[in-house]
Amino acid sequence: MARVPLRPLDGIDFDAVLGEIGDAVAKDFGKGKVASYIPALKRVSPKKLGIAVSTVDGKEYRYGDAREPFSIQSISKVLTLIVALHHEGEGLWKRVGREPSGNPYNSLVQLERENGIPRNPFINAGALVVTDSLLTHDKDAKENFLNLARTLSGNKKVKFDREVARSERDHGHRNAAIAHFLKSHGNLNCDVEEVLDLYFHQCALAMSCLDLSRAFLPLANQGNDMHAGGNLIDKRRVKRVNAVMLTCGVYDGVGNFAYRVGIPCKSGVGGGIVGVIPRALSICVWSPELDAIGNSYVGTRVLELFTSKTHLSVF
Amino acid sequence: MARVPLRPLDGIDFDAVLGEIGDAVAKDFGKGKVASYIPALKRVSPKKLGIAVSTVDGKEYRYGDAREPFSIQSISKVLTLIVALHHEGEGLWKRVGREPSGNPYNSLVQLERENGIPRNPFINAGALVVTDSLLTHDKDAKENFLNLARTLSGNKKVKFDREVARSERDHGHRNAAIAHFLKSHGNLNCDVEEVLDLYFHQCALAMSCLDLSRAFLPLANQGNDMHAGGNLIDKRRVKRVNAVMLTCGVYDGVGNFAYRVGIPCKSGVGGGIVGVIPRALSICVWSPELDAIGNSYVGTRVLELFTSKTHLSVF
Amino acid sequence: MARVPLRPLDGIDFDAVLGEIGDAVAKDFGKGKVASYIPALKRVSPKKLGIAVSTVDGKEYRYGDAREPFSIQSISKVLTLIVALHHEGEGLWKRVGREPSGNPYNSLVQLERENGIPRNPFINAGALVVTDSLLTHDKDAKENFLNLARTLSGNKKVKFDREVARSERDHGHRNAAIAHFLKSHGNLNCDVEEVLDLYFHQCALAMSCLDLSRAFLPLANQGNDMHAGGNLIDKRRVKRVNAVMLTCGVYDGVGNFAYRVGIPCKSGVGGGIVGVIPRALSICVWSPELDAIGNSYVGTRVLELFTSKTHLSVF
Amino acid sequence: MARVPLRPLDGIDFDAVLGEIGDAVAKDFGKGKVASYIPALKRVSPKKLGIAVSTVDGKEYRYGDAREPFSIQSISKVLTLIVALHHEGEGLWKRVGREPSGNPYNSLVQLERENGIPRNPFINAGALVVTDSLLTHDKDAKENFLNLARTLSGNKKVKFDREVARSERDHGHRNAAIAHFLKSHGNLNCDVEEVLDLYFHQCALAMSCLDLSRAFLPLANQGNDMHAGGNLIDKRRVKRVNAVMLTCGVYDGVGNFAYRVGIPCKSGVGGGIVGVIPRALSICVWSPELDAIGNSYVGTRVLELFTSKTHLSVF
Repeated sequence: MARVPLRPLDGIDFDAVLGEIGDAVAKDFGKGKVASYIPALKRVSPKKLGIAVSTVDGKEYRYGDAREPFSIQSISKVLTLIVALHHEGEGLWKRVGREPSGNPYNSLVQLERENGIPRNPFINAGALVVTDSLLTHDKDAKENFLNLARTLSGNKKVKFDREVARSERDHGHRNAAIAHFLKSHGNLNCDVEEVLDLYFHQCALAMSCLDLSRAFLPLANQGNDMHAGGNLIDKRRVKRVNAVMLTCGVYDGVGNFAYRVGIPCKSGVGGGIVGVIPRALSICVWSPELDAIGNSYVGTRVLELFTSKTHLSVF
Repeated sequence: MARVPLRPLDGIDFDAVLGEIGDAVAKDFGKGKVASYIPALKRVSPKKLGIAVSTVDGKEYRYGDAREPFSIQSISKVLTLIVALHHEGEGLWKRVGREPSGNPYNSLVQLERENGIPRNPFINAGALVVTDSLLTHDKDAKENFLNLARTLSGNKKVKFDREVARSERDHGHRNAAIAHFLKSHGNLNCDVEEVLDLYFHQCALAMSCLDLSRAFLPLANQGNDMHAGGNLIDKRRVKRVNAVMLTCGVYDGVGNFAYRVGIPCKSGVGGGIVGVIPRALSICVWSPELDAIGNSYVGTRVLELFTSKTHLSVF
Repeated sequence: MARVPLRPLDGIDFDAVLGEIGDAVAKDFGKGKVASYIPALKRVSPKKLGIAVSTVDGKEYRYGDAREPFSIQSISKVLTLIVALHHEGEGLWKRVGREPSGNPYNSLVQLERENGIPRNPFINAGALVVTDSLLTHDKDAKENFLNLARTLSGNKKVKFDREVARSERDHGHRNAAIAHFLKSHGNLNCDVEEVLDLYFHQCALAMSCLDLSRAFLPLANQGNDMHAGGNLIDKRRVKRVNAVMLTCGVYDGVGNFAYRVGIPCKSGVGGGIVGVIPRALSICVWSPELDAIGNSYVGTRVLELFTSKTHLSVF
Repeated sequence: MARVPLRPLDGIDFDAVLGEIGDAVAKDFGKGKVASYIPALKRVSPKKLGIAVSTVDGKEYRYGDAREPFSIQSISKVLTLIVALHHEGEGLWKRVGREPSGNPYNSLVQLERENGIPRNPFINAGALVVTDSLLTHDKDAKENFLNLARTLSGNKKVKFDREVARSERDHGHRNAAIAHFLKSHGNLNCDVEEVLDLYFHQCALAMSCLDLSRAFLPLANQGNDMHAGGNLIDKRRVKRVNAVMLTCGVYDGVGNFAYRVGIPCKSGVGGGIVGVIPRALSICVWSPELDAIGNSYVGTRVLELFTSKTHLSVF
């Protein structure tokens, strides 16, 4: 069988590309809105912009606020998915689908029509099922999840932002509604409060662009080095997680994102977006102002320019 | 800027791969059902299996019934999309979205909730808007569409199956409902009957696996040679059409398809599926038995094995 | 068994009541909007107000433009329902339900979810099924429906407004969509065009308040005198048609109507509303300005005042 | 203005009517299913049948198990509605609609589409808003609600069934989901747990057919004697509560109920149904086996026969 080589990245001057992009998006600030559903997020400066790139040949590139931690929010759902797949294997898909939802990320409509089976692991309902899976298989799921984030990013200082976690809980009635709904359908094993606690904590993880580009590099590198020396994710599963990111990763805007950006991505309402270009590199951009769907406005533009300038789309 | 090279395909023995796949799927016949909504489709032998591969370095591989024409049905929607984008440019997206629908391909629910703007050009409603665009810009749209199919496939014998077209019309009340609905929302310029006539004809185009793998090769080759010597589609648009195929191309099963197969595809209820592996090859498989969603059961399995054995997923 | 007597109406000075109401609603003109989806309706003077009352003890009262014909539109659906029940009996309910829809009158959403069985005979989809029933049982359905309207109203000059009927057809793509959708579900026996033609004509019937209060009197009088000397509707069925009017008669506003007005009513977008007070009287009010749901704004107010002042609610 | 007299009930031999009905429905047992979502309800004997009638001229009639207490469940929602209207007046309708829902009683779909405003006070979401209103205006709402039930029924022994209340809570994740959802939309003032506690208790009230026919008699008697000597509900509001019962009182079956039975009713999954015939009588029937919608199968049949035999429909 053929071995698929790394893509040649030598010809690309990534520092120059990031600089050009930084200049180009300066005019795009002010077009989105910082998430305001919890006070802790609302306080972030809207003008932040960080970019970090980690390549499969071991290089790293940074721009702007690439080292400043931010609330990763839904980006955490990729990491919990990887852990849950490690625990349950393909059986996980009996409890959660992998189809784009065509509905807002916090919708209960589809969940009701489809008997408590969430459409995919990246909408809130699906992520709660995934989190329940972690708790079901591991009593120390919260601590171990934090350790995983530290190991993958190579940064022992990664931590939960307790204020954000508390704020999420205080304003988390919509997620509580979803969790109780899943429980009423028998699709939550653990106690509702425990699942919500882990969920609010995973979302409140504070990481920088650099932390995240490093943490996601194994997804660009066929699983190599994922969980340093461990076997958390294998080559075949990497391909599949990337596929779920591309079809379900950016809320209700996956089609538009694939069209404009063209690579698997996962966004969070903290303004971060992680992208994976298989066999080439991982990238993380952070800018807090969100578009109407909930993706970083400037971040989306950065990624669009990046794949356009480097010709590194999967398509 | 970096130039993206072709993927090295030299190491792959495609004939052997196709042979292995043909053997492996022999046990999968009988698990799906031939489309039965019109008599003309129901008559097709369920045991057919054809595969054709066209590579960007100019080679072709065939297996089984690769030269036998079948009803391309919804595969035609990619070709009409390319023509409509040629006519209207990005303005087309004001009339039709490019998000996965999360609903069956012939659903009116979403169309009603979203004021007559279809979710994407590959569900029936969106395809009717695209067909309307062809008619709006070209009085001889039907003849010219046939000519395009002939040019792209290099096969002057490609033709409409008149019996299928007539049968589609006789049983086409659901599509007539959608067309009238679009008209009531002002999203159809031409006469409903004319739009339906072209739509039923484009779906009734009879082409073989080989015809289709040739016709779709430009989408794997950055637009080169598309419309022999013409400028029907440029490199940037190729990338985008592939993105729409990956996120919307296989009815309500795009997530599962991306997960299992991992390349942009477009299926039709005639049992054909066309796939594109950017910078590498195009592939067409045909086998008439469909799964519950409407994709060829054996065809899906063939493509899954193909990307697995060749390691040629986009992810 | 007990015989239910007529309600004593002697103590009510209906002429005075109607006069008081006319004065009271003078300030309500200008708050609604005349139907504008077809030119023929849009031309009606918005300031019209007619009221007619027919009592079971044989008296009649009129106010304002009570003798001026207007387009009865959906009010016709009660009459076609009575005819269809005469043709098919309770078997009709296999093809159409009798539950309030909770959705706009021209919605296709519910119809799709419920496999082509309309929720009730007063939303457009249900009315089309009822019209199909008339055509199925009677080749001269259009002529005979006109004759029925003439007999019930005692007015031989009642006629179809041809201009309205033609205008309905020209702008009838939404209804055509519904009819084709029903046909695709096998819930329409006759040709789509024929059903639409009768439907557009029944809606285009021009009748006055007095014509309609007379035509609906049998529903207030246990079926007596309905279809002069015939057996079109019996006592038991009268009760049931009134029930369908109360729970489904005024589009998506039945709860509010029952709450404020408290009697079975059927409205039309021509601005007419017919009400029935069992064992007491029938009433018709006409005023063309419609509220957001499609019921006459002033007409609703007139009926609310009427039942309030006369204490004649069914509750 | 006319005074509306009581209907003459003298000619009706109610004891004979109830006896005939009891005989007639003997064959209907076994066609429905006892509610099984909580153990406490599942244990009830399916063969129970009680009927009680209270007339506006002060008489009472009983049949079968008319004195045996059962779980009133959703019948309680009429009583809480009356209290909430007493507290808030018409302003209550800003927080909850009064339209039939066209969806199952515990659905979240409509609630999401309509921004947390429940369609009516008798679906679970609407009832939770009403319960929240009670708690908002009265710290001792639970105790006072119990006292109200005792006063209206004239039975000081009426009490909450603690086991049922506990069982409701233990299996109440669906209602918890709805309550959290309302809270997330700002349509719940009080603490979610407190609202659920009162809600589960009001549903767990144990009353007999006789208790309920007495408690609902004021709704048949223009408010007279409601809350013995007090002013809980006036004549005008009685008419309106009856209207809400008729259009929203029997889950997703109001159209069918109005068609077959023809009077305002409210049912509960404990198998009870209360009916009101304005200016004539109140009736309560209890039989635990439920139809697919959640209404007592035998109870519905009893009411249908009752209005048919006595000719006392509102239509």
